Amino acid sequence: MKAAETPTVPGFRASGIHCGIKAGEKAGEPDLALLVSDEPATVAGVFTLSTVVGAPVELSRARAQRGRARAVVVNSGVANVAMGERGRRNAVRMGDLVARAVGCPEEEVLVASTGVIGEPLPMGAIGRGVRAAAEVLDPGGLGRAAEAIRTTDTFAKLAQRRVRIGGRTVTVAGIAKGSGMIEPDMATMLAFVLTDAQASAPYLRGVLRRVADDTFNRVSVDGETSTSDSVLLLANGVSGAPGLKRAQGPDAERFEAAVHDVAESLAMDLARDGEGATKLVKVVVVGASSPSQARAAARRIANSLLVKTAIFGADPNWGRILQTVGAGRIRLDLEHTRIGLCGVTVFRAGASAGPAARRRAAARLADSAEVEIVMDLAVGVHRARVWTCDLSTEYVRINAEYTT
Amino acid sequence: MKAAETPTVPGFRASGIHCGIKAGEKAGEPDLALLVSDEPATVAGVFTLSTVVGAPVELSRARAQRGRARAVVVNSGVANVAMGERGRRNAVRMGDLVARAVGCPEEEVLVASTGVIGEPLPMGAIGRGVRAAAEVLDPGGLGRAAEAIRTTDTFAKLAQRRVRIGGRTVTVAGIAKGSGMIEPDMATMLAFVLTDAQASAPYLRGVLRRVADDTFNRVSVDGETSTSDSVLLLANGVSGAPGLKRAQGPDAERFEAAVHDVAESLAMDLARDGEGATKLVKVVVVGASSPSQARAAARRIANSLLVKTAIFGADPNWGRILQTVGAGRIRLDLEHTRIGLCGVTVFRAGASAGPAARRRAAARLADSAEVEIVMDLAVGVHRARVWTCDLSTEYVRINAEYTT
Repeated sequence: MKAAETPTVPGFRASGIHCGIKAGEKAGEPDLALLVSDEPATVAGVFTLSTVVGAPVELSRARAQRGRARAVVVNSGVANVAMGERGRRNAVRMGDLVARAVGCPEEEVLVASTGVIGEPLPMGAIGRGVRAAAEVLDPGGLGRAAEAIRTTDTFAKLAQRRVRIGGRTVTVAGIAKGSGMIEPDMATMLAFVLTDAQASAPYLRGVLRRVADDTFNRVSVDGETSTSDSVLLLANGVSGAPGLKRAQGPDAERFEAAVHDVAESLAMDLARDGEGATKLVKVVVVGASSPSQARAAARRIANSLLVKTAIFGADPNWGRILQTVGAGRIRLDLEHTRIGLCGVTVFRAGASAGPAARRRAAARLADSAEVEIVMDLAVGVHRARVWTCDLSTEYVRINAEYTT
Repeated sequence: MKAAETPTVPGFRASGIHCGIKAGEKAGEPDLALLVSDEPATVAGVFTLSTVVGAPVELSRARAQRGRARAVVVNSGVANVAMGERGRRNAVRMGDLVARAVGCPEEEVLVASTGVIGEPLPMGAIGRGVRAAAEVLDPGGLGRAAEAIRTTDTFAKLAQRRVRIGGRTVTVAGIAKGSGMIEPDMATMLAFVLTDAQASAPYLRGVLRRVADDTFNRVSVDGETSTSDSVLLLANGVSGAPGLKRAQGPDAERFEAAVHDVAESLAMDLARDGEGATKLVKVVVVGASSPSQARAAARRIANSLLVKTAIFGADPNWGRILQTVGAGRIRLDLEHTRIGLCGVTVFRAGASAGPAARRRAAARLADSAEVEIVMDLAVGVHRARVWTCDLSTEYVRINAEYTT
């Protein structure tokens, strides 16, 4: 969702301001976002599985586990990672500043940071920033918050859906930042989804786990997980809709579908905005012998430098797709394997579908901003899909010239 | 070994000629190599673990298992992969042509092909080529064979060692071709190591398995295994040195060390000659909690686009190294983890070693054609090393512009 209606969620206010964390060529850009619920909200979180995690992740993971939150504070520019005891102290202080500014218990503030690794948070700037951000909190501020969490994202990412639950309108809206394709020292995916639904924390956790697994975890930014990846889902109940406690039933299904749609829209924007990317690529693997084989095959294709550079060059190179799947030791029946590019079958019956199909696929690849790769392994019924982007010379330039 | 003495192994003759398989801008370049032992040799092979393998691999794997070989024929230009029944027939015919030309049983001919996937071998050209290659077989022909197996390799790869076994001089020599960095449709690593040692086939298998695991399997060309990767070791006994049957003992150790040295030299050349590469990178991980954790950490570092682009840009970016190892869920003790670049410690005690160390490392990175990355995970005693190369804009250009 670019340049569309700015999302608002009843009972939530947000802001995004510049407080002086970002330096260099990004100096002056927004770098601190605040999300506040007027009522205590239930919360669920999913976090990076990296063995190297930032102090903000440690803190927010523990607090999200308690299930209750009033505010989320996010800074961009400095990730507060690999800073030892000082990092942990600063993450706690950042939360305390917010608790004081908005008047809530400290444990109900969640914290996220994204930016360079190995540098200290400028606590003076953050103190001033939190006070300034609290003063301009606004129901329409989600767009500015989305701006403030950007690092090298080329556009702010927002999404919104509305559903009817028990006769009431419930809003689900989210913001996210990507990691370029996979990004320098700032490789972090952050997403915050807000809703005025009423939902128990255990229920919310289940929803977020299922949704994240099918959306954010399917954006392949090349297998790099950052030290700071965090996704939070807050529900404040302000809609007055009946409370959601279990995954079964039409209300719960509608709600989960809305959260899924918002997350999926944000996830696709993350792939679309990959560093140097010129095309959004959707990889669909079907006919796999197990769900994990399907996922592994889709990820291999999505992460293959050769496939990504071929897409950049509009080359319908099925040999590279076949090869990377084979190299992943994925089970397939070569004589019945099928590979389609932008709807054109280019490989079937153990061989090329011929030069005419190749030319047709090449033409569609050249013309499409969104490319679909479909591969049928022909050994089972399991499927998986992953979004990624192509790999351009621009990507290498960005990442080779980036210096801290 | 470039531009040094051309290796010769007593009792082996070799040749490399052009027979018309390579087309386009490579037309006219050598594309068929023949290696022949005057006496029946014992043989061991290791092959790609891909689930998509070429017909030559299927054939040679079965024949190597029998333990006896007289000849190896290799063509470049067409890989004979994904060609179904026709591919299998052509691989067998290629072997038969050699058996007839050199006068040996068909089962004692091994076959390898490297080049584009999905195209038929031009059997007429190969027939003429085999006869022509057999006519010019020469004890000094190994250099020409090394030329003929190249695809996008920028130089031919040869290595040689001599050792004394039981009072006799034993020669071990090998040739190899790389896969660029990881290569288009021609991503194949082939290596052929010849020796005049006398060795039983089971012993030779053990030597090759151990050596390949420590050399060829440690070249990380980004995790892509090709459909055609093959390494063969042939021993013809012509030296008259006492026969080797078991791995223990000083003779066996000296022999295995010589094979290891030859394989290591070839493997390093493969990494050095990565597509678009400007630097050879050696990654050493120590202090891991298990051998598999050590290998996984080294491979993550070697395969990380961010690390590879940083090396290309001479940026001593320890954050990227830390992040990719964390993302691989590798166990480490962050407070005791150490990262060194070109001999300069840039990260220790959970934090940056400071700007002076960073500047020193940056200067060394800029000046070195060979870069060493050392990471101590500080949780155990296990270690691993992997060779790779940096990732340049040239790599993307080559692979995006490559069309079949």
